[in-house]
Amino acid sequence: MDKKPNEVLVSMKNVEDYALEVITLLNQGAQEVDIKGVGRDIGKAVDVFNMIKDKLGNGVELGSVSIGSESRDKKRLSFILLRVKKVY
Amino acid sequence: MDKKPNEVLVSMKNVEDYALEVITLLNQGAQEVDIKGVGRDIGKAVDVFNMIKDKLGNGVELGSVSIGSESRDKKRLSFILLRVKKVY
Repeated sequence: MDKKPNEVLVSMKNVEDYALEVITLLNQGAQEVDIKGVGRDIGKAVDVFNMIKDKLGNGVELGSVSIGSESRDKKRLSFILLRVKKVY
Repeated sequence: MDKKPNEVLVSMKNVEDYALEVITLLNQGAQEVDIKGVGRDIGKAVDVFNMIKDKLGNGVELGSVSIGSESRDKKRLSFILLRVKKVY
């Protein structure tokens, strides 16, 4: 799967690892970071967002949410894309 | 867990069952139906939305998405709330 700039694809690692990855991108100057979860990792993507929200509070907000499905290995998988926006 | 009017809580049943439940509510006159998924059922809630979108096409749209966490049995669980809106 293509990884776009400022997109964190949630997969095998811990929730904490992905949350830290997003926070690092924000600290490095990114205004927005997309958290992507596919298939069974959709729930984990939401966990990652909640952990970031816990840590940064009003410093971030949920910008937009996209939902859809994509094909992988001939199977149709749902995905979610959570856009985290920095708030000043 | 409280079940509000026009809210379908995704849990043990098949994706098809929940999709049918939402479509039935829309056919009975509901303008909006919330699909709720908690914890490991978050991904299934997204599957339900995608199936409804497949079946009804431009007849429905994703109104809004809420994300958060709630306590259950002293554990913190993420949830997602997908609002399906009828389009005319």
